[in-house]
Amino acid sequence: MQLRDNLVTDTGWEIREESFNEELLINNGSNFMTGNGYLGYRGTLPEWRADQYVGCFVTDTYDNADGKWEELASAPNGLYVSVSVDGREVSALGGETIDYSRELSFRYGRHARRMSWSMDPRAAGAEANVATPAASAPAESAPPQLTLEDERFASYGNIHLMAARHRLSAHAAGRVTIHAGIDGEVWSLHGEHFRSCEPSSAGDDLYMKTITGERQIGMVVSNRVVFTEGPEPAARELVTEDRGIFRRLDFDVAAGTDIAFELYCVIYTSNDLPDPAGACARDLDQCSEKRYPRLWTEHTRVWDGIWDCSRVDVDGDELAQVLLRYNIYHNVIATPAHTDHLPIGARGLSCQAYQGAAFWDQEIFNLPMFVYTRPDVARRILIYRYKTLDGARRKARRLGYYGAFYAWVSSDTGDEICPSYFFKDVLTGRDIRNHFNDWQIHISPDIAYAVWNYYLVTGDWAFMRDYGAEMLFEIAQFLVSRVHFKRDKHRYEFIRLLGPDEYHENVDNNTFTAVQARYALRAAVNVYVALGDRQPELRESMTARLGIEQSHVDEWRRMVELIHVNEPDLATGVIEQFDGFFDHEDITPDALAERLIDPGEYWGWPNGIAVPTQVSKQADVCQIFTLHRGQYSTEVMKANYDYYEPRTQHGSSLSPSVYGTVASWIGYTDTAREYLVKSSAVDLFNTNKSVSGGTFIGGIHTAACGAAWQMVVFGFCGLELEGETLRFRPHLPESWASVSFFLEIRGALLDVEVASSSVTVTSRATSRSGVGVVVGNTPAEEGGSLEPAESVTLTF
Amino acid sequence: MQLRDNLVTDTGWEIREESFNEELLINNGSNFMTGNGYLGYRGTLPEWRADQYVGCFVTDTYDNADGKWEELASAPNGLYVSVSVDGREVSALGGETIDYSRELSFRYGRHARRMSWSMDPRAAGAEANVATPAASAPAESAPPQLTLEDERFASYGNIHLMAARHRLSAHAAGRVTIHAGIDGEVWSLHGEHFRSCEPSSAGDDLYMKTITGERQIGMVVSNRVVFTEGPEPAARELVTEDRGIFRRLDFDVAAGTDIAFELYCVIYTSNDLPDPAGACARDLDQCSEKRYPRLWTEHTRVWDGIWDCSRVDVDGDELAQVLLRYNIYHNVIATPAHTDHLPIGARGLSCQAYQGAAFWDQEIFNLPMFVYTRPDVARRILIYRYKTLDGARRKARRLGYYGAFYAWVSSDTGDEICPSYFFKDVLTGRDIRNHFNDWQIHISPDIAYAVWNYYLVTGDWAFMRDYGAEMLFEIAQFLVSRVHFKRDKHRYEFIRLLGPDEYHENVDNNTFTAVQARYALRAAVNVYVALGDRQPELRESMTARLGIEQSHVDEWRRMVELIHVNEPDLATGVIEQFDGFFDHEDITPDALAERLIDPGEYWGWPNGIAVPTQVSKQADVCQIFTLHRGQYSTEVMKANYDYYEPRTQHGSSLSPSVYGTVASWIGYTDTAREYLVKSSAVDLFNTNKSVSGGTFIGGIHTAACGAAWQMVVFGFCGLELEGETLRFRPHLPESWASVSFFLEIRGALLDVEVASSSVTVTSRATSRSGVGVVVGNTPAEEGGSLEPAESVTLTF
Repeated sequence: MQLRDNLVTDTGWEIREESFNEELLINNGSNFMTGNGYLGYRGTLPEWRADQYVGCFVTDTYDNADGKWEELASAPNGLYVSVSVDGREVSALGGETIDYSRELSFRYGRHARRMSWSMDPRAAGAEANVATPAASAPAESAPPQLTLEDERFASYGNIHLMAARHRLSAHAAGRVTIHAGIDGEVWSLHGEHFRSCEPSSAGDDLYMKTITGERQIGMVVSNRVVFTEGPEPAARELVTEDRGIFRRLDFDVAAGTDIAFELYCVIYTSNDLPDPAGACARDLDQCSEKRYPRLWTEHTRVWDGIWDCSRVDVDGDELAQVLLRYNIYHNVIATPAHTDHLPIGARGLSCQAYQGAAFWDQEIFNLPMFVYTRPDVARRILIYRYKTLDGARRKARRLGYYGAFYAWVSSDTGDEICPSYFFKDVLTGRDIRNHFNDWQIHISPDIAYAVWNYYLVTGDWAFMRDYGAEMLFEIAQFLVSRVHFKRDKHRYEFIRLLGPDEYHENVDNNTFTAVQARYALRAAVNVYVALGDRQPELRESMTARLGIEQSHVDEWRRMVELIHVNEPDLATGVIEQFDGFFDHEDITPDALAERLIDPGEYWGWPNGIAVPTQVSKQADVCQIFTLHRGQYSTEVMKANYDYYEPRTQHGSSLSPSVYGTVASWIGYTDTAREYLVKSSAVDLFNTNKSVSGGTFIGGIHTAACGAAWQMVVFGFCGLELEGETLRFRPHLPESWASVSFFLEIRGALLDVEVASSSVTVTSRATSRSGVGVVVGNTPAEEGGSLEPAESVTLTF
Repeated sequence: MQLRDNLVTDTGWEIREESFNEELLINNGSNFMTGNGYLGYRGTLPEWRADQYVGCFVTDTYDNADGKWEELASAPNGLYVSVSVDGREVSALGGETIDYSRELSFRYGRHARRMSWSMDPRAAGAEANVATPAASAPAESAPPQLTLEDERFASYGNIHLMAARHRLSAHAAGRVTIHAGIDGEVWSLHGEHFRSCEPSSAGDDLYMKTITGERQIGMVVSNRVVFTEGPEPAARELVTEDRGIFRRLDFDVAAGTDIAFELYCVIYTSNDLPDPAGACARDLDQCSEKRYPRLWTEHTRVWDGIWDCSRVDVDGDELAQVLLRYNIYHNVIATPAHTDHLPIGARGLSCQAYQGAAFWDQEIFNLPMFVYTRPDVARRILIYRYKTLDGARRKARRLGYYGAFYAWVSSDTGDEICPSYFFKDVLTGRDIRNHFNDWQIHISPDIAYAVWNYYLVTGDWAFMRDYGAEMLFEIAQFLVSRVHFKRDKHRYEFIRLLGPDEYHENVDNNTFTAVQARYALRAAVNVYVALGDRQPELRESMTARLGIEQSHVDEWRRMVELIHVNEPDLATGVIEQFDGFFDHEDITPDALAERLIDPGEYWGWPNGIAVPTQVSKQADVCQIFTLHRGQYSTEVMKANYDYYEPRTQHGSSLSPSVYGTVASWIGYTDTAREYLVKSSAVDLFNTNKSVSGGTFIGGIHTAACGAAWQMVVFGFCGLELEGETLRFRPHLPESWASVSFFLEIRGALLDVEVASSSVTVTSRATSRSGVGVVVGNTPAEEGGSLEPAESVTLTF
């Protein structure tokens, strides 16, 4: 089916463009990217360079080059291959392209391009600059062509490896020149990250050894080429440049000649092991042994296992299906599942925007899919938060608090790397002091929420004991140090907040923040009690180490009781987003937009157009429901959806999924599906602006990727965990015959199929425990336990 | 002596310009104004109109014409007189002026102009446009002239009256035409304030009856002319226009003819009495009976009494002397001493800027001079605050508090009239949401400070009982409802403040605010106890009426103990202005100014250039010292002066006097005198910009006027009241031989002369009590009591 303009899918497992639009270079470089959680390689063509936004981003290479933005270093491009024919460079951007198509298959993350190029420049000169699908069938009188086919993948068999293979088919005689090697001319957002960049060769292998400027992280990019078909080269030369090293190979080909080669690129950094260059050499040798087909097989086996857990199959909605796979794919490759000390970047490894760092997105948007399907991955990401506790403690102390105030933008150490001046006032050119880094405190209770929720879904007490408890306690301590008590009102208040709606900084008693804080404190109290019951000595030593006294725990309990949380209005059911919100000007986002002087203006703090209005950047009150559905009636959710949705600008990619989820719960099923498409296609259809307030914010919106899974499983299928019972309250779109997916709940491995009036849950034989299942509003007690190797179908 | 360019003084009692500068029309219209606390008449020429910023502002005529700015209505000009010769209008702005001078005498508020005008246009055409002093002695060959002399005063004998007299001397024959009447074409800042404007005549008298648009206040301006010399007019006509009514009188004069007339303008409003027109008629008749000389005498007697109390005579510094008189004069005429329900406007009655309304300026800057010299006037101004308690209560309730949150901008009702959008972002044209009206809470404790201080100086228990106590209690209640308690730090904090330094909105624990709040609460506790001792039933009924319970009073006491007040740093002595101030960028105001894109930019909230820096608009920490000198050592004051003074932009006219006062205390005597001149000449030398952030803020800076008295008496003479003892710690500038002034302390009427090494205090025979006097650091116990009719000289 056609997805957009020149973008199609055949099986729902891939996207394919059959011509290309130069305006989408940045966007499609992200959409077509490959990656494996260790590295991300942008969806660019082998012959492209910095101007075409070529980038390869390797985890754990944080570097601050411009004094402001700490971000991942942009690695030299170890998959560079360009081809010339009789001195003319073959380029999809050039005028001699006859046909062109490229595809990204989500199943195994395979990027493939096929392109034909006129070997007779005079004939091709009259052709259109960019090939159109109609031009792809060459007429009989067509000029002689060179056909290029290349494919690549970022290996899950060895996460340090990217492998490619190329085939050139010459339909006429000529001189074909291949440049293949490592190119340092790549895209970098904020400056030069390498203090040195040293090209070298060892035998047939090429190396680029770089050292980052700030922390002197060494990164080695290595490259080997193995020719598998074709004539001997007429000439061979090693070309070394300041920022590149290439093999130049000249072939005099006859008509009908094919040249084929495999290319391996291995990357290690000094954060991985002490001798990255040695590791590269070893891995390159392994590649030569295994060769491309076996490397591919090893890679696909891992992916098969991932999809076995992560799949969401929709029967009856091809668009939804391909979008879901696109999003799940990107959520997977963004996630450093191989380690427990690294975050999921808000843009994954698709570019340097948002600094390769975690926001609350990680816990609230990316993580639930993993919690419910691959809890080992979720566990590692949460341990990352444990390992960055010291950074959170430093941040709290620096700002006059104690406990753990997590970084709004968190890289490897957990220290705050969100610049104080994030956006620019494009009207004046002055920097804006955004308070993401000091007022948006909900990050800490959001992490507590994820910790507690992980425990509820997995029952992983060892995690709670070894990691979770300390995080919960320190977050509770931070909240104690941050809250104010209003003696005259006998309540605690959180003052000067920035809630999810980032256009309204500096607000009091933001309801979302208060609800999350109360939840976090309750979890801390629960775990404090449980730890006292199960491991009293551990609790004693832990609280002594953390300086937590009984009076603090008393304060946690008091706060749970007395935190001021705005409740639904008795008459309307609407919950005020923060104190005084309803006094703000009531205007629609569209009407408000007419006040823009410059389309690039930031709408928020301190003087953006949305500040004095009720226009929200994103879901804020409705975000509460997605995390605490059980606490609110459908009527209240509906009242708030109806109030807030028309006042929401969706200036954040986090917003549509929330409204979509709530829409599915309150019976707005068609709207919910529209929101599913809107949220899931934010990148594929390029609907979000990539620059705001002068700051580049493009790349893959990984939170929306994680949200796609949630919209279907939590939203349409209505999954909730009640104690140890799974409840489904499905509202499928009419066109959907069924949805099926996998869940892992406290050791029960479940294949679920939700149809229009039934839910079938099958517990795999490998399940380690039973689980209760109910549908609709059936009381949880009435659901029997589904034991391993059993299946149940419930109708509603 | 020459004061500035064309501005001179002869006796130190007047200012005189001998030519005029059209660029200073607005500024000199304020400097040369006359007034009496009921009305202010700008220092314009009789023939001028709206374009020359003619305005007469009458108290108690608040009106909101544009939906934003409530301000005093601009009354029709009842002193309009223009003269033509042979059809050519005599004008200082025109090309035929030969000589020109005008003077304002502060002693009696007399404005006088003398001007000669060529009766032969051809000869004068070659003259300079604006006469210079050199041109004022006509050469023998000079053309025939018409000389105009006019003078006027705003009467203190009858505050509804302005009287003028005019003399025209024709040195050649010609036709002289006089227009005299009431002109509605006057300057108004924010729209048309009158829904109707009805000219009429009754006999020889002219009337303009107006009704304001918002509250339908009636204002009647009436005018009578009495000719005292000159020929019968050749023609006489009544000219009625939409917005004016005039007598037109034509005289055919011979050479050597003089025409003289007196002009009375009487103004009443329906807020004064039910029949303003009748009152005008009655007063005009009285004027005709009394005539100008007797009206003048009655007026001067009142002024003599005022100066007897308010005088500050400096021997040895002519510039300081004239500036002091200028400022005291303007502080007096700005003050509605005749009533107890009206405020002192921040620009007095000089124009409509700052809405004819009171700010904290009133209590902290204008009032101390009256407290110490004319306590009856201070009492009435404080009763105004009592009478506006309900407005303060309404404001508190509207914002979610209780007690009395006084208006930042307070007119007759005490309701907040400060617009939420005060300034404009001149770079974008967008309104700025300044939080003067909701975050600048120090206004309430500032009023409490003045109430308590008035009581300390006067011992006026009746005031405290009938008015002060309720104000103090309600202010304390407001503070209870505004403060937050940090349980983990066991302290109260005031969050989200705007301190005196208005460039930094949204700060926590502003030290000035905290100190003032603590002082206010302590005063409330003191008075609560005293009232219980003296009048327990009254206290009971009052607290019952106000809903004040014992728990509230307990809270006042706790807050006195536990309010967080930043203390001097142990090492440096510097007090942090608010939490985190020292983390702001450290830059000088001059260096910062280079970042301006437009000179008219507002420097403050939310995104002005000063916001992220340590540059303060005005004294903030040093302001504390001027109000609580006894609490801080000279070393601490010096440390803070040295720190903050170079970082202060003096963007407020309130600033230089504070630094000047502190400078005089820490021995920076020369600098203190420079600050005296700077502060006192802010209007006279036109050193403050009259437009900021798109809002007109010109006019007489009455706070600086009140501050001039304080800088000399509190600053150089070092007056402090310690219990019932006066302490002087003088630091006079070297050139000053002596300063003398009057004080009234708890019934003791004292003439004080401070010389370079002695202080002489003489208690008048009319004193009602004794007072202790000490100098330097002599313990208060060592000062004997100075009884009525006694004198003492103490050396130091």
